[in-house]
Amino acid sequence: MKPPKDLINAIQKNNSFLILTHTTPDGDAFGSAIALKFLLEQLGKKAEVYAEPAPQQYQFLPGIELIKNIENFQASSLKPVLILVDCNTVARISYKKEIIETIQASAFNTKLIIDHHIEINKTVDLSSIKWIEPEAAATGIMIYYLIKTLNGKITPQIATALYTAIIVDTGNFQFDNTTEEVLQVASELVRCGAKPSYIYQQSFESWSENRFKLFTKMLNTVEIIPPIAIGFISKEDFEETETSEADTERFVEFLRILKDVNVSVLFREVERDFIKVSLRSKGDVDVSRIATEFGGGGHKNAAGFRIKTSFEEARRRLIEKLKACNDTLFKIVQDCSNVQE
Amino acid sequence: MKPPKDLINAIQKNNSFLILTHTTPDGDAFGSAIALKFLLEQLGKKAEVYAEPAPQQYQFLPGIELIKNIENFQASSLKPVLILVDCNTVARISYKKEIIETIQASAFNTKLIIDHHIEINKTVDLSSIKWIEPEAAATGIMIYYLIKTLNGKITPQIATALYTAIIVDTGNFQFDNTTEEVLQVASELVRCGAKPSYIYQQSFESWSENRFKLFTKMLNTVEIIPPIAIGFISKEDFEETETSEADTERFVEFLRILKDVNVSVLFREVERDFIKVSLRSKGDVDVSRIATEFGGGGHKNAAGFRIKTSFEEARRRLIEKLKACNDTLFKIVQDCSNVQE
Repeated sequence: MKPPKDLINAIQKNNSFLILTHTTPDGDAFGSAIALKFLLEQLGKKAEVYAEPAPQQYQFLPGIELIKNIENFQASSLKPVLILVDCNTVARISYKKEIIETIQASAFNTKLIIDHHIEINKTVDLSSIKWIEPEAAATGIMIYYLIKTLNGKITPQIATALYTAIIVDTGNFQFDNTTEEVLQVASELVRCGAKPSYIYQQSFESWSENRFKLFTKMLNTVEIIPPIAIGFISKEDFEETETSEADTERFVEFLRILKDVNVSVLFREVERDFIKVSLRSKGDVDVSRIATEFGGGGHKNAAGFRIKTSFEEARRRLIEKLKACNDTLFKIVQDCSNVQE
Repeated sequence: MKPPKDLINAIQKNNSFLILTHTTPDGDAFGSAIALKFLLEQLGKKAEVYAEPAPQQYQFLPGIELIKNIENFQASSLKPVLILVDCNTVARISYKKEIIETIQASAFNTKLIIDHHIEINKTVDLSSIKWIEPEAAATGIMIYYLIKTLNGKITPQIATALYTAIIVDTGNFQFDNTTEEVLQVASELVRCGAKPSYIYQQSFESWSENRFKLFTKMLNTVEIIPPIAIGFISKEDFEETETSEADTERFVEFLRILKDVNVSVLFREVERDFIKVSLRSKGDVDVSRIATEFGGGGHKNAAGFRIKTSFEEARRRLIEKLKACNDTLFKIVQDCSNVQE
């Protein structure tokens, strides 16, 4: 994996950078943005990161306090270089129209994109230099190679940021994207000062008591209809446990723990008759196809959609759709069991 | 890490080996034993492994079907070389007296020990060649270096066995023992054919529906008394879900997910008035000291004991003991939060 020359040139010849990432940023977004900021500063340049406030589990990241709230972003008169990190379109930066408009109103000298997501809308934008690697497990891996190419130093802060990026996007080395290279890079980050168990604890083992109660409530609702497992969180569950949607991160992944389950589903009633649905799958089962049919999207093993109806109705419609592709699903399940030769 | 010369010599000059491991073998025990058997066979030698039958989650291991049931072990007339793997005393091989006696009745030419556990009873046994590395995250790592030293080939089967050994003993790279070296070795095993997500799924995501129900029951009992979380499984819970003690593997680790919890405890009522207690801790909190006070033992972050009394009484006594060292515990909790400089 090698950053393109025009990206390297654009970094080398400019001195002031604005780094933005996607809405509801995760460990890969924060880790990659922080590491990139530190790299640019090592090179004697100015770099500012704007993002939504970091949730509790990422507060430990060295440099997180240097990230400015995207709500306070103002149309720049400086016109520096914009770097989009872990997303490839300005539309992904915020759900708020005003914020998107403010960014669009800022005329940047150059736009750089560093991302591992597939481009959904390949709009022609001649002012952008894109480095997109859908094969990269995390944008953090790309930043690692960028640092190497620019002869930067992997400080303990950068190592911590990039290690976090990697473990969040590989589910701590459990997803399909965990390769020889991912483990190799992770090993070098540890050599440079990342502390695996500490970072794991901060990123994954920082549940509040309320979040734990919400999880227990969710588990009590689980229906197992092999190869599908379904969980549900009602508006009342959120209220009773004083939690919010952000607290459900990784709940749906947990249901993968069931041997005979290849598709796990979580329904969240965020408002009365407004349901968010998350889908996860194992191996070759492609849940993004199902999400797309409901107007959503995502990756092969992680997708989602929103639906304006009751839980019961949403559940009925999804099961109907899943049943329709049941034969395929079951076939894939059988194929998966032969993965190891 | 380097195997001692006398161990290498003993392997090179002998032709027939018996490999034994500890009771209720885990992924490190099975993975190390299988990899060692394959290595010895590569070298043109005979090797037999005897162990307790493998639970469902390790049935995927290539070569698991070649392991013979320890119940069928008979005092050998061949007197080959005995290799103890992942344990360092014959007493750990079985809970059954007859089996231990049968092994002791077999006069071996040589006894070799390859283990990463600390020796508890350092009995002088001149016939043993010991290679004990308490710093090794898994015995699987030691087998990896043994293969390197003996110029063996890491086949996909061996890579799968050793990768399993590593992830089981590091909690899939989440425990304190996850080092640069562990990730480096894991990366090379992937290069040699280990499939991370497949092995993870088999080893960790193979819960039966009944085990899942037992887990949900357990979560419903959880008491959080920061920095302690306590779960309980009654005899009725086991009966209602048709599960056994083996199904509780990793339950107590799950409670570490709570931010303010540094010690998690699981009480299991295996028989009326006979409670098994598992303790887990984060960072520097040493639960083996507490377990020792109740006649048990273990490692700093993972220990346990058994107590012949009711759950209520066991819970009362443990909390009393924990309260007695509460000051230390709370102090350590504070120290832990400053781990990252």
